[in-house]
Amino acid sequence: MNERFPLLLYDLATANRVVANEGVLDAFGHISVRHPENPERYFLACSLAVCHHHAPAVLPYCISGERLVPVFILGGVLGHEVPFWDQRDDFGDTNMLVQRSDEGASLARALGPHMAVLMRRHGATVVGRDLRELVFRTIYGARNAEYQTQARLIGNVSALSAGEATLIGAQAEQPGALSRAWEYWVTRLAKRNDLPKRPDSV
Amino acid sequence: MNERFPLLLYDLATANRVVANEGVLDAFGHISVRHPENPERYFLACSLAVCHHHAPAVLPYCISGERLVPVFILGGVLGHEVPFWDQRDDFGDTNMLVQRSDEGASLARALGPHMAVLMRRHGATVVGRDLRELVFRTIYGARNAEYQTQARLIGNVSALSAGEATLIGAQAEQPGALSRAWEYWVTRLAKRNDLPKRPDSV
Amino acid sequence: MNERFPLLLYDLATANRVVANEGVLDAFGHISVRHPENPERYFLACSLAVCHHHAPAVLPYCISGERLVPVFILGGVLGHEVPFWDQRDDFGDTNMLVQRSDEGASLARALGPHMAVLMRRHGATVVGRDLRELVFRTIYGARNAEYQTQARLIGNVSALSAGEATLIGAQAEQPGALSRAWEYWVTRLAKRNDLPKRPDSV
Amino acid sequence: MNERFPLLLYDLATANRVVANEGVLDAFGHISVRHPENPERYFLACSLAVCHHHAPAVLPYCISGERLVPVFILGGVLGHEVPFWDQRDDFGDTNMLVQRSDEGASLARALGPHMAVLMRRHGATVVGRDLRELVFRTIYGARNAEYQTQARLIGNVSALSAGEATLIGAQAEQPGALSRAWEYWVTRLAKRNDLPKRPDSV
Repeated sequence: MNERFPLLLYDLATANRVVANEGVLDAFGHISVRHPENPERYFLACSLAVCHHHAPAVLPYCISGERLVPVFILGGVLGHEVPFWDQRDDFGDTNMLVQRSDEGASLARALGPHMAVLMRRHGATVVGRDLRELVFRTIYGARNAEYQTQARLIGNVSALSAGEATLIGAQAEQPGALSRAWEYWVTRLAKRNDLPKRPDSV
Repeated sequence: MNERFPLLLYDLATANRVVANEGVLDAFGHISVRHPENPERYFLACSLAVCHHHAPAVLPYCISGERLVPVFILGGVLGHEVPFWDQRDDFGDTNMLVQRSDEGASLARALGPHMAVLMRRHGATVVGRDLRELVFRTIYGARNAEYQTQARLIGNVSALSAGEATLIGAQAEQPGALSRAWEYWVTRLAKRNDLPKRPDSV
Repeated sequence: MNERFPLLLYDLATANRVVANEGVLDAFGHISVRHPENPERYFLACSLAVCHHHAPAVLPYCISGERLVPVFILGGVLGHEVPFWDQRDDFGDTNMLVQRSDEGASLARALGPHMAVLMRRHGATVVGRDLRELVFRTIYGARNAEYQTQARLIGNVSALSAGEATLIGAQAEQPGALSRAWEYWVTRLAKRNDLPKRPDSV
Repeated sequence: MNERFPLLLYDLATANRVVANEGVLDAFGHISVRHPENPERYFLACSLAVCHHHAPAVLPYCISGERLVPVFILGGVLGHEVPFWDQRDDFGDTNMLVQRSDEGASLARALGPHMAVLMRRHGATVVGRDLRELVFRTIYGARNAEYQTQARLIGNVSALSAGEATLIGAQAEQPGALSRAWEYWVTRLAKRNDLPKRPDSV
């Protein structure tokens, strides 16, 4: 077995708890990652990670269909556009779970090259190249939604330009920013005595 | 005495604390259940359980009379329609407590075959076939109200279709979904050191 | 010294912490009570207690001048009308602290026979015949403000009738309701390990 | 080395934690202060302190460009006017970090003689003559933003007059008010077992 597995599993458990602790995940949200040696299995991945959630801040956009746009510096991690997917369009009345391969393929097409996709009346799916990037994008994406809603209530929303979103995305993907935020969220988790048990080999 | 009573009482205490911990119950909300062998007494029931609450998320609907509709996948547990009851209609000025049998009968008529009824300027009453289903419906019903309000503020509300609500209701009533959510909420309660004392016989 | 003083001081400390724990008091809010044997001193009172606060839920009414009305069963404890007082009307530009006797007298006139008065751009002052009634009215008054705001955002606000407010007020003043809520809030405080030290004589 | 350094460092750590504990600072907000003997270094200062933050309450103003005005007694610490600065105006598309000296100089010009400046789509920068004044202004500035937003949602916003803001500012700068609030926030931090370690020499 790959010797990095225990640490990756530990990071995965920590990532799930961090996102829950920041108010984004509920009982049915989850972070899943691809097995690095067997792409048919979903556990761990150095190269791709996915977070599906029903964050309270994001659901108003899923319900209303209003566009979610980056409205503050750290919201730039969402990219300049967040597409929608409505399971109803291709499949009519369903139980709204994405269970069949054609449902998954339809969702993947809607995501395309973007960093997140909003699922109508359901939630969001966010992608990242590793767990730290994924958690960063998930949490600041939810914060952006919250601030956009509040700004909309008192006036007009002024979004980042495409150029700003690109420059901020490049900045945020640097290890320094990702590590600073990751350590901040892990510290908040540790203060609540809620860190998962570290593997013995670490 | 029925040997299942201690465990049912434990579950009832846990259910009350779970719903309070998730921000739905206040000092005067409560879950009450029918005695399984004596329908005149209200303590425990395998077959029917009731939660009365004044959840902050639901009260704006009780106050304004705006319709509460299922707006996201887990809100499907509310069913496609949530009726209103206004004590004032049948009884004029009262202290708004449901104390007399004719007041209870009037409320029951308004509930009819539905899963919840909103009481004008007062709160909500939710029914379930057992404690887990009741808690699931109570908490996700309150979450649905919260998201509907936020969606209304930024745009138009797009509700689940009747077909989606029916399919989701069937899915959510399966033991797997109910148990997953129940365990999640009980874990959150345990992290706050707030679980009730387990009966010795368990 | 009156032998009930230590217990009254304990209750006063508990009342301050309860109201802070429920999100109503900040650094400058406080509950003050009249000395039972010397009305010139303010510490303890069986007969009158006052809470001055800047609760987040109430300030939007102080700032906008919109009327605060009882909108749900427990909001009935506010009574049917909550008057406003604007220090600017009688005294022009001040530091907005009520420090002089003529400022206090002006505020008292605005309160009149009511249960609470809203101070423009400042906060609220609530009165009660004892600490339990005062805490009950202060907390449910703040909850009422919160629900009224949310209801206003999604539709029209339907208030209690004057008859309902009177009947509910009579009900809420009974020791049973006051004790139930008091014990609930004290339990919440105890779970946070935040109860004041009990006097030795109790 | 200046013997007051350990205590100032302790106060600086406490100030950062207080502002985070009150919901104003996130992973990238921070309080920085000038070295008292070497103005080229930024660590400690008796004479000037700066807090940069992305408080949820303030961001809607940064995003919408709506004016933030003092709307309640303690909001008077913001002064009568809070200017805006838009990095885009002078520098076009950037990563929105203030990294170059000409970017810092542009921001300082926008701040001018005021107590705070709002940075469009980014956050706020607040100044104070010492840590207690800075923390007081930062926290009550954020509270003011929160209340202004809520008041705007239910009616018209009535602001403090320039005279009131001046009189309140003078009052709030007195050591008594600053110490009372500081002790309140430090107590809240202590209850969460989150105070930094005190230096041995204190």
